[in-house]
Amino acid sequence: MSRLTIKDVAKAAGVSFQTVSLVLNHPEKVAPRTRELVQAAIDALNFIPNVAARSLRNISTRTLACVMFNGSSYDERSERTQDTHYHNVVQTLTRAADRAGYTLLQRNLMREDEASLVYVRDLFLAGRIDGMIAMVNRAGNPVVSELHRLGYPCVVYGMADPACHHVVQSDRQAGLAVVEHLYRSGCRRIALVTGPQKDHQPGKSREQGVPTSSEARYFGYLDGLEKCGLTPRPEWVVTGDWSLESGYRAAAQLCHQAERPDAIFLGNDRMALGALKALYDLGVKVPHEISVVGFDNMRYDDFSIPSLTSVDAPMLEMCEFAVKLLLERIEQRQEQRSQSADPAAAQAALVQKMFSTHLVIRDSTRPVM
Amino acid sequence: MSRLTIKDVAKAAGVSFQTVSLVLNHPEKVAPRTRELVQAAIDALNFIPNVAARSLRNISTRTLACVMFNGSSYDERSERTQDTHYHNVVQTLTRAADRAGYTLLQRNLMREDEASLVYVRDLFLAGRIDGMIAMVNRAGNPVVSELHRLGYPCVVYGMADPACHHVVQSDRQAGLAVVEHLYRSGCRRIALVTGPQKDHQPGKSREQGVPTSSEARYFGYLDGLEKCGLTPRPEWVVTGDWSLESGYRAAAQLCHQAERPDAIFLGNDRMALGALKALYDLGVKVPHEISVVGFDNMRYDDFSIPSLTSVDAPMLEMCEFAVKLLLERIEQRQEQRSQSADPAAAQAALVQKMFSTHLVIRDSTRPVM
Repeated sequence: MSRLTIKDVAKAAGVSFQTVSLVLNHPEKVAPRTRELVQAAIDALNFIPNVAARSLRNISTRTLACVMFNGSSYDERSERTQDTHYHNVVQTLTRAADRAGYTLLQRNLMREDEASLVYVRDLFLAGRIDGMIAMVNRAGNPVVSELHRLGYPCVVYGMADPACHHVVQSDRQAGLAVVEHLYRSGCRRIALVTGPQKDHQPGKSREQGVPTSSEARYFGYLDGLEKCGLTPRPEWVVTGDWSLESGYRAAAQLCHQAERPDAIFLGNDRMALGALKALYDLGVKVPHEISVVGFDNMRYDDFSIPSLTSVDAPMLEMCEFAVKLLLERIEQRQEQRSQSADPAAAQAALVQKMFSTHLVIRDSTRPVM
Repeated sequence: MSRLTIKDVAKAAGVSFQTVSLVLNHPEKVAPRTRELVQAAIDALNFIPNVAARSLRNISTRTLACVMFNGSSYDERSERTQDTHYHNVVQTLTRAADRAGYTLLQRNLMREDEASLVYVRDLFLAGRIDGMIAMVNRAGNPVVSELHRLGYPCVVYGMADPACHHVVQSDRQAGLAVVEHLYRSGCRRIALVTGPQKDHQPGKSREQGVPTSSEARYFGYLDGLEKCGLTPRPEWVVTGDWSLESGYRAAAQLCHQAERPDAIFLGNDRMALGALKALYDLGVKVPHEISVVGFDNMRYDDFSIPSLTSVDAPMLEMCEFAVKLLLERIEQRQEQRSQSADPAAAQAALVQKMFSTHLVIRDSTRPVM
């Protein structure tokens, strides 16, 4: 991604880059003939004069970006799109932005490299966005860190990145609560289906680094086993990939083990719905033989057969908080620019908020004894 | 939504509106003191000088808008967002736009009034969008018609509006195919669950006006009954609202009728999944006692219990076609502007494409005898 600069325009117009800058910022100081030459070069190159757009009129386009890194909201294996947690978050952020009078742009960036950094920075420089909500699959995403350091308003959603403003749900506490509930309903052989390796580093310890959502749910699961006096069994922890298919496969795999689990906690609802289908196909009764718990409390959970016990996070509240937090950063930045305040001072005051989750109990788990 | 004009700026600055226009378009011709006065008024009013933005630099922001009229992608009854056909279309359009190097903005406009027209026109005038894909719930939406008349690139998605470029699926043929399939599998008492009244005008005849998707599916259902020699029964046509809940209620209502249907065709998959749950709760066996057919062929259909027979429309192909068509209109408009061609000539050549649907047969319908 090679970006055009005013030097390219200058070269094409046969003038100095200072002249181009003058045309962009103070056209009244440039002779009409020179202005025309520069304008013709700008048009020919399709050059977007970011600096000009910014300095001529400091217009807010009242637009925010939601950027997903290292992932895709698309189901690449199929032409059929699907209901994912990410879609739901984007829709809910769109609604929260709408209410605040903002438009939300959605972008997927497959890499955390320089090109991605330039891309997002240009959105800011061109005045196309005022702030960014980032969805990352690990803490310390270098693009987000750098944008934050440069003073651009950014909020991380769903990851407890210690270096950034962020909004997260209490994944670890949720994992613990699920195991405790299953234990109280009589389950003793509790299995877990995690997210894919890109979102869940196997072998990471509970004390090491910042966990992803999937890792935090796993650590909560380990906490729960420990609290209930149950021994973790590696063969009962299966890697999934958030899809219906992987939940189906994981449940089938767990059913075919010598010692079959009596409960499966799946890291999201889609995998849990796949598991319900696998158990139905195998003739395993839910919840009498195996209890099933999901995560996300999607609307469909009331209508699955049987209805699905699932962890609820206050997504609407979280999205509204994230947008509010981002708008405050935007306002703060605008004040700083007008007052030439110290940008480092503002960065010290990070806002990092964790929202509580709760378990919604339906028919896929046995009643507590 | 009262829009600011340069007259408001002129009043606030205590100058004539011609002076404001001059400041916006030819600042070099205005005395510095006057320029400052006008700029201060612009800042104070947060006025966005569309005309200036347009005429100063004819920059493409490479952004398209997807605008939904008279509907909402949000589930207003609940904080839990959900997988709707609209979300899927937006996601698929986003992907198609992405591939073409464009960003897609998403907007819901609850009305078809002057304010909505001004809102979208301003997006065009301010250079914030290059084109619009409109999702409408009836043909002849006045906002879309007027924008089209004014020469702004617009494509209607999902509605066969005769006055606009559009992309639709063959809803009527699909309704016919569903009834024929059910008939061949031995069903004789075939019920239909439609969309809500805002999307489906009861009593509209097959020859009258342009049908909505829901109406076209209903007409296809009537065609199918006729072809199979079955008599339409008004009590077997129930109004739903596209939600899981309404499918549940409609199926329960149909089950409690004196003469119970032996098949239910629901206008979308979400209602069909709600119906499967209602039949499960009532102990009615699917498909042996009642067959169930949905519409949209969502990814979940493989995993419902039993898996759901559903109508598939080539959404990805449709979205890619819609984006391609829109980009061609945008290019055409840019050429016209540079050549001062006759805009009426271009409008004569409407592109209107209907995509075929096909029935994906799964376990919620009986095999053909």
